[in-house]
Amino acid sequence: MKSRAAVAFGPGKPLEIVELDVAPPRAGEVMIKITHTGVCHTDAFTLSGDDPEGVFPVVLGHEGAGVVVEVGEGVTSVQPGDHVIPLYTAECGECLFCKSGKTNLCTAVRATQGKGLMPDGTTRFSYNGEPVYHYMGCSTFSEYTVVAEVSLAKINPQANHEQVCLLGCGVTTGIGAVHNTAKVQPGDSVAVFGLGGIGLAVLQGARQAQAGRIIAIDTNPSKFELAKEFGATECINPNDYDKPIQEVIIEMTGWGVDHSFECIGNVKVMRAALESAHRGWGQSVIIGVAGAGQEISTRPFQLVTGRQWKGSAFGGVKGRSQLPGMVEDAMRGKIALKPFVTHTMPLDEINTAFDLMHEGKSIRSVIHYD
Amino acid sequence: MKSRAAVAFGPGKPLEIVELDVAPPRAGEVMIKITHTGVCHTDAFTLSGDDPEGVFPVVLGHEGAGVVVEVGEGVTSVQPGDHVIPLYTAECGECLFCKSGKTNLCTAVRATQGKGLMPDGTTRFSYNGEPVYHYMGCSTFSEYTVVAEVSLAKINPQANHEQVCLLGCGVTTGIGAVHNTAKVQPGDSVAVFGLGGIGLAVLQGARQAQAGRIIAIDTNPSKFELAKEFGATECINPNDYDKPIQEVIIEMTGWGVDHSFECIGNVKVMRAALESAHRGWGQSVIIGVAGAGQEISTRPFQLVTGRQWKGSAFGGVKGRSQLPGMVEDAMRGKIALKPFVTHTMPLDEINTAFDLMHEGKSIRSVIHYD
Repeated sequence: MKSRAAVAFGPGKPLEIVELDVAPPRAGEVMIKITHTGVCHTDAFTLSGDDPEGVFPVVLGHEGAGVVVEVGEGVTSVQPGDHVIPLYTAECGECLFCKSGKTNLCTAVRATQGKGLMPDGTTRFSYNGEPVYHYMGCSTFSEYTVVAEVSLAKINPQANHEQVCLLGCGVTTGIGAVHNTAKVQPGDSVAVFGLGGIGLAVLQGARQAQAGRIIAIDTNPSKFELAKEFGATECINPNDYDKPIQEVIIEMTGWGVDHSFECIGNVKVMRAALESAHRGWGQSVIIGVAGAGQEISTRPFQLVTGRQWKGSAFGGVKGRSQLPGMVEDAMRGKIALKPFVTHTMPLDEINTAFDLMHEGKSIRSVIHYD
Repeated sequence: MKSRAAVAFGPGKPLEIVELDVAPPRAGEVMIKITHTGVCHTDAFTLSGDDPEGVFPVVLGHEGAGVVVEVGEGVTSVQPGDHVIPLYTAECGECLFCKSGKTNLCTAVRATQGKGLMPDGTTRFSYNGEPVYHYMGCSTFSEYTVVAEVSLAKINPQANHEQVCLLGCGVTTGIGAVHNTAKVQPGDSVAVFGLGGIGLAVLQGARQAQAGRIIAIDTNPSKFELAKEFGATECINPNDYDKPIQEVIIEMTGWGVDHSFECIGNVKVMRAALESAHRGWGQSVIIGVAGAGQEISTRPFQLVTGRQWKGSAFGGVKGRSQLPGMVEDAMRGKIALKPFVTHTMPLDEINTAFDLMHEGKSIRSVIHYD
């Protein structure tokens, strides 16, 4: 079938809106009509060419919501008409990782997903007869897309897709990191480095967890007002100090914060976040994705004196088990999504969404297909 | 009073056996007659001059056992005749850290201890009228030493000092890291990097915890026999492979080990240990003390895919609360200490103990004062 899609034909080039050919779902696969998709920094990272795993031409997009239109052989968990969120972190329920009860990092489709392919090693997308690659198992920048059954969360059909699509990545990542990875407890102190979509979601998660002091850090003070709406009790700008921000935070708090979160992808900030953690038990969670080949470093003394360094992917959330409940939470107002959606636009204007993001003018632009 | 002591008069010089003057204990302090003391790598590290906090002249030694001979004003928890182990990690029970229930890193005497002083900012040691510094709050290389009351664990008077002195540092550090920091569970897989005293203690702790696969790693295969006695199920030598040892361990185990422990103090090995940890949940615990200014590094992807980087000091053990029980465990044979004691010698021969350690010929040399 034909599908409107924004295709990345090469690194660093604007997306091109084309009519793509989409083959029907094969065994264990599902075709979805995407209704809405967010535009995330990770899409921009891969588009830039800096992602060592990036392949082209590709249909980017991994933060969407839609409706099932066709299911392949053997698919039992969804049927046409079901409302769904595609998952870049699958949940097969059967692999070593799913069964461990310790992680959400399912390996069912990992090897092929990383290569831009469906689990059988082929693509469903083509343009002028040439294959076009999938992205993160989702490819939500095509109106019709095909994903593995294990990469789909079935959600409440009453949910507002323009908002809950954000649970496909950024908001879930931030909120989940607070609850699943850091396990913030009432009264704990928190520092959030970087006030983009994920940082704001972390603030929201910290407030849900009834954290005490919530310190928001960004070099752009125009973000502070919104940060406070989301739960920050204090906002600081590293450029206002003539010493490292970790020293500032240690002085503000005495011994550092119970939990710090890096929401940028900057390895120097990752170090600052770790070194802002409380002596004896503070932990720092890396959420941001660093550039290829970049490394984090610190003195081992930081760890020997009780700090812990962790990371979080998709907020530690198991998509099929937990995301439907988060959609319900959003519908009941327990998770605020609307403030994240600063711009909406049709697919034709998707390059504008990337421009707004690069200029720091948007939190999330949401693309709609209707 | 006069006391036989081995004094480090300057970095890199052999210790000198002298008659030291030891002043009586002041308020909150206790004088101890040390009966036995181990010689640990940390003593050698400070003696070498590489320790940025090192001060001279100093009475080194921090792994001892002895008997209380005099108590200062206000001391209530011990009295003359009590058998004790000095603690370089104090436990006041009253500071933020002691009360947290999350760490053993008491701060009661931390600031002065790091400077080689008693809590009131002075020293009890002098030689020819000139002050001699304390070390790690213990200074067990003097037959008579003075320590803070909060830096003393009162132990069973029937305990064998020649053995239980090792619970003052190395053995407790290794066993404690397994139980308190990593919390190894039955069936878990473990990798131990470095088979000195601490590494062997980690092996013993892993076996106590009923770990499944226990992989011991060292470049000196002469240590493998003893490692197997202590619980290693496999021993590997990185020099036998033409690829990084973390790749070897990943291949051996499929996805890495549940827990890895760095017991050397080498920042490159710390990285290898982290990268040997299981995707999704593996954790790596740094126990070794790295040289001044050295840094650990890795790609943040290692953490984002679920590995955790931690550290452990004194095995996370609260000395006054927990060490007496570990002494009982040793007396009941639940902790084997005898195999660690490869050499015993009088104080006069203490420089030989350092030589044996540098040459890799000893696990622990224990000095006796009688």
